[in-house]
Amino acid sequence: MIFCPGSITAFFSTLISENPLLSGSYGVGFTIDKGVFVEVEKAEKTEIIVNGQSWDFPTVQYVVNELAKDDVKVKIKMELPVGCGFGMSGASALATALSLNNFFELKKSFIELADLAHESEVINKTGLGDVICQTFGGLVVRKNACCPSKAAVERLIVDVNLDFLVLGKISTEEVLKDELKRKRINEVGMRCLEEFIRSPEFDNLFSIANRFSMETGLIDDEMRDIIEAVESNGGKAAMIMLGKAIFAYNGFDVLKEFGNPFKAKITCCGVQLV
Amino acid sequence: MIFCPGSITAFFSTLISENPLLSGSYGVGFTIDKGVFVEVEKAEKTEIIVNGQSWDFPTVQYVVNELAKDDVKVKIKMELPVGCGFGMSGASALATALSLNNFFELKKSFIELADLAHESEVINKTGLGDVICQTFGGLVVRKNACCPSKAAVERLIVDVNLDFLVLGKISTEEVLKDELKRKRINEVGMRCLEEFIRSPEFDNLFSIANRFSMETGLIDDEMRDIIEAVESNGGKAAMIMLGKAIFAYNGFDVLKEFGNPFKAKITCCGVQLV
Repeated sequence: MIFCPGSITAFFSTLISENPLLSGSYGVGFTIDKGVFVEVEKAEKTEIIVNGQSWDFPTVQYVVNELAKDDVKVKIKMELPVGCGFGMSGASALATALSLNNFFELKKSFIELADLAHESEVINKTGLGDVICQTFGGLVVRKNACCPSKAAVERLIVDVNLDFLVLGKISTEEVLKDELKRKRINEVGMRCLEEFIRSPEFDNLFSIANRFSMETGLIDDEMRDIIEAVESNGGKAAMIMLGKAIFAYNGFDVLKEFGNPFKAKITCCGVQLV
Repeated sequence: MIFCPGSITAFFSTLISENPLLSGSYGVGFTIDKGVFVEVEKAEKTEIIVNGQSWDFPTVQYVVNELAKDDVKVKIKMELPVGCGFGMSGASALATALSLNNFFELKKSFIELADLAHESEVINKTGLGDVICQTFGGLVVRKNACCPSKAAVERLIVDVNLDFLVLGKISTEEVLKDELKRKRINEVGMRCLEEFIRSPEFDNLFSIANRFSMETGLIDDEMRDIIEAVESNGGKAAMIMLGKAIFAYNGFDVLKEFGNPFKAKITCCGVQLV
């Protein structure tokens, strides 16, 4: 079975070109020890099953269309919610690509499969940087915006337990469709990235991520209140890009007042066999 | 500063082609939480310093020749011995490539830098698979023999503390120069890889690695005695490829009878910023 970690983006700026392999996002994100598990089996009719239910899942379907030599059932177990900034589309696409490669003995290279998953995310407008993060694993600094094989990345050593609270979904596509918003995101995101690269330490992630969400206007009052509550209690918190969701350090008790938080750990593992 | 983990190979088979990017080794290896730290600084004359001493280090020099725009001092801190199967040449080359890329703002992609480090290892005959393992990190199954950008790899989740004992060096070049020995290594190595892929579990690593070292004749009586001693005491142990060295699980006390063992942990982190 293939496991692919969820990926959380703290801040980003986008680059969309006609070539999906030259499209992506600059920024900083990290993989966590919760994600998706994928298994492929022979089937009469191709089907994508997520947590027991048949899904119309274009980002995975694209990968299936490109790689499957025959009808298959793609069984995906998802540990995190979709559309909330955990990179579940990218994780599903990447783990499916690796699973199909094994199942049909395609002998494609790891990076080639990662590029395909990235391409599918870009084309289906479900993500721009998650697959890069999930290919390499860890706290990943994306210093250019493109596919895994062309990625200029740095990984940082971190070993931290975080707390997460999901309040709702945000459509990446909807946000990026707004030209004015996207221009602002790109400007602020690039400044944030430069700042993080100057002192690439985990602690700086929260303050820069907060500046990003405020200056881009992506944060709302509810999330701002929660982050302030965590901070008043001595913790750190920031908004997850792009989800109506929060990641926090030392924030579990405060987050409990606002919903049902869960814990996960930053890991330096990317997609892997389990 | 860039850290690159040491890489230990359990069994392998080689493929040498005229193109270094299509040369490498099939096999199974893993990264550990000890390795090399590299820093680059401006200098009057290019120099490679390892643990405070000036070294003639062709595998690193090749990378410097390819990437440095000016004279630099490459300062390498090595936590593990050279020539004993810990992938110190590959680690140094890879970490130097990433450091020079940052220092001269070359904006090369991660995989491009990894390919260069691999190329240098192949050309200088210091290793064939370590850079792949160090690029991705973890317990890495190399299903083809080539450079990182063309690598078909799988990573396995493992979280294990191991014990290591170094008895002496083995020259990879010397072993691989012997045509008959290399043919035998390739035959046995390929069978071992197929067996491991059928049941890719950490526990199988030791038994398959032991079959490999026996059937290839790479092991000597001293190492065999030590492995048997660890096993009689309820642990597991195998020879490191290619070093006169042992890796063991639950073997520290027994290894102490034969020398000065040390501990390290399998990590899923590859080369990274620290």
